Parts: sequence; structure tokens; C-alpha cells
Amino acid sequence: MKSDFDVALPSIKQLQTLIKEGKQVEVKLLSGDLLNGKLVWQDKNCLCVMDANNQSTTVWRQALAYIKSKN
Amino acid sequence: MKSDFDVALPSIKQLQTLIKEGKQVEVKLLSGDLLNGKLVWQDKNCLCVMDANNQSTTVWRQALAYIKSKN
Amino acid sequence: MKSDFDVALPSIKQLQTLIKEGKQVEVKLLSGDLLNGKLVWQDKNCLCVMDANNQSTTVWRQALAYIKSKN
Amino acid sequence: MKSDFDVALPSIKQLQTLIKEGKQVEVKLLSGDLLNGKLVWQDKNCLCVMDANNQSTTVWRQALAYIKSKN
Amino acid sequence: MKSDFDVALPSIKQLQTLIKEGKQVEVKLLSGDLLNGKLVWQDKNCLCVMDANNQSTTVWRQALAYIKSKN
Amino acid sequence: MKSDFDVALPSIKQLQTLIKEGKQVEVKLLSGDLLNGKLVWQDKNCLCVMDANNQSTTVWRQALAYIKSKN
Repeated sequence: MKSDFDVALPSIKQLQTLIKEGKQVEVKLLSGDLLNGKLVWQDKNCLCVMDANNQSTTVWRQALAYIKSKN
Repeated sequence: MKSDFDVALPSIKQLQTLIKEGKQVEVKLLSGDLLNGKLVWQDKNCLCVMDANNQSTTVWRQALAYIKSKN
Repeated sequence: MKSDFDVALPSIKQLQTLIKEGKQVEVKLLSGDLLNGKLVWQDKNCLCVMDANNQSTTVWRQALAYIKSKN
Repeated sequence: MKSDFDVALPSIKQLQTLIKEGKQVEVKLLSGDLLNGKLVWQDKNCLCVMDANNQSTTVWRQALAYIKSKN
Repeated sequence: MKSDFDVALPSIKQLQTLIKEGKQVEVKLLSGDLLNGKLVWQDKNCLCVMDANNQSTTVWRQALAYIKSKN
Repeated sequence: MKSDFDVALPSIKQLQTLIKEGKQVEVKLLSGDLLNGKLVWQDKNCLCVMDANNQSTTVWRQALAYIKSKN
């Protein structure tokens, strides 16, 4: 399924809400990597995750397995 | 095969039924992760799985290997 | 190569034959999982495999490595 | 790069030659599997490999890493 | 999500800035490989990473998991 | 990002130069395989690598992680 960067989609809106609220998330990648931090921006190709040390990581969407927001 | 988010497709309807019925499912990802819970929504890019602790996980479709509904 | 769900393609017809004949198959996924059972349906996005205990598993085509029909 | 099933492409013609000549090949998949045998057909989605015991395996193109013809 | 090589996208501009500033980056691939060096060019298909020994590596975008710029 | 087989792209021209100059390259695949040899041709779907024993391997572009030319 070719996915879309359509701001009306629930999945895109959910990420936008996570960015606005600065919630802690867990981002699991197909490489097996697990990133922890806050989402700071998203575009059509990528997401950016900022960790507790203000280190930012640009993640390619193609590499996303799942995102979990911490309760 | 570029897949489609066409609500008439058996695979999309099956997920919709699983969401409505709140059935327990097992979701296996290409990262090797195995998630257990109920499906709560789907859109063109993602599925959302809610586990027994009400922790929700947004899964990217590109990462799906299989879904098994528990008998 | 973007593949097609074109019922005239040998690969799609082969699966259709396997479904009709209820042959035992081995389905290997890119996640490393190996499923055994009968194919029960296919659509543009997915295949469904039913095992000996009537447990069905919906497999995403993107996850397919190979299918072997048991002689 | 979205690839093509264009019979004029060197890569498609090479597979066609391997099929006609019945050459032994080694097919490596992204799942890590290594298949040995002869190519018997190809279409837009799949290749079929027949091993020494006449067991055929339908391989999805998306899973191909490389093909080596044995000298 | 089919991504774009659109120079107005934040993700493409970010890489362009990293190239101009010659910042040290860490490039993680879906193969598990981790490359260290400076980005020297990008195009629609690839990125090029130059390490401390002036060895350049051409990375396919499809293989990108994440890029981290060193603080 | 759907990539292109556009001969004006730096990445395609770089491979063409490596083919003409017969340079030794290291080709890393998403399957984890590492191939050593010279590039002998490329098309839209594949690259061909010839090793020191004149064994040629046809590599699918979808499987490419990186290519490094030996200094």
C-alpha cells in the first residue's frame, strides 16, 4: 500500500498531536533500533526524534515499524 | 504489488470486522516484533493495536508480516 | 518491480489453483516465519493461510519470500 | 527505483536465457534463504525455481537479493 | 509512503545543510550497518558518505534507517 | 522515494564510471551479503558484479545497501 502524507489521515494527525503535545514516544525501526524521545517534526519522507540529551535523529518513514506513546 | 486501501477488498474488510468485534489478534512485524491486543483503527498508512493495559501502538502497514485472530 | 494483481499472470493463477485444489503449501516470509497450511483466499494486499487446526493467518504480500507447494 | 518487467531489459533477458538453457542457478533472498535449481518461468511478480527433486518454489521478486548462474 | 526528492522538503533541506556545513553524521542502514563521516552529495536515489580516510560510500536511500548529526 | 534510472543522475553516472574504469567495488546488500568485484553492467532493475574468478552475480537494486569503490 503506497501511503500518503495527507494531513487528514488519522495516522498523520496522530503524529501531529504527538509533536504539539511533546509526548514521550518509543519509535521502533525495521533495523531493530528503538529510539526514545519526543517527535519534533514530520514531513513526507521523515520524522525527527529528539532524545533527553537534545540529540535529534532523522528517521526515514520507510524504516518505521511502530510508534508507541508513553502513557 | 502496490496495495490499496480499498474498503471493498477482503483484507481491508477483514480488519474492519476485527475492529468492530474487538477480537484479540496477534500482529507479526517484519522487524520480528509480535504485538498482542485488539485492533482499534486502520487508515491508509497504519493500524492501531491496543494491548491489555490500554497501551496503544501505531503500526506502519509496510511493517506487517501477518495478522492472526485468536480463536 | 511494482507487481500486479492481474488474474492473467501465471503467479496469480498458480495461487488461484492452489486455493481451488486445497494443496498444502509452505509460505516463507521476509520476517523469517514459515507458515504451513492451505491457501484459502488472495486479494491485492494479502493471502490467507489456514493451518491444520483451522487457525487462519492473513499474510501481507509485501512480506512474501516464497511459496512451495508440497508434492 | 520501481523496476519494470520489460522484456528488452538486460536483466529480464538474462533470466529468459537462464530459463531456456536450463542452467543451474543460486537464488539468494532477502530473508536469507538460498535456493538452488533451475529457473522455469518468470512473470511480473515472481520467478519459479525447480530443484533437483523437481520441487518447485515460487519466489516473489521483492524478495530477490541476487542470482548467480553456476559456471 | 512514496517519498519525494523535493528540495523544499525539510528532510531534503536538512541533508543539504549537513552537506554544506560538513558536519559529522552517523548513518544507520536497514542492513544494520552504521557509517560515520560527512555527507558529500545526495540525489534522488543515493547519499554519499565520506569517512575520515577519504573513503566514500554511496548509500541507497531505500536502505536508510536514520541519520544523526553529531553535536 | 521512488528512484529513477535517469542517466543524468550522479548516482547512475557514478556506477557508469565504475563500470568503464573497471574499478574494484564492495557491494553490501540488505540481506547482509557483501560482494567484491567489478561492476560489468547496470539496468533499471539490476547490477552485475564480476568477481576475481569471473563468476558474475546479478544483484537486484532493491537489495542494495551501499557500494564502496576501493581506493
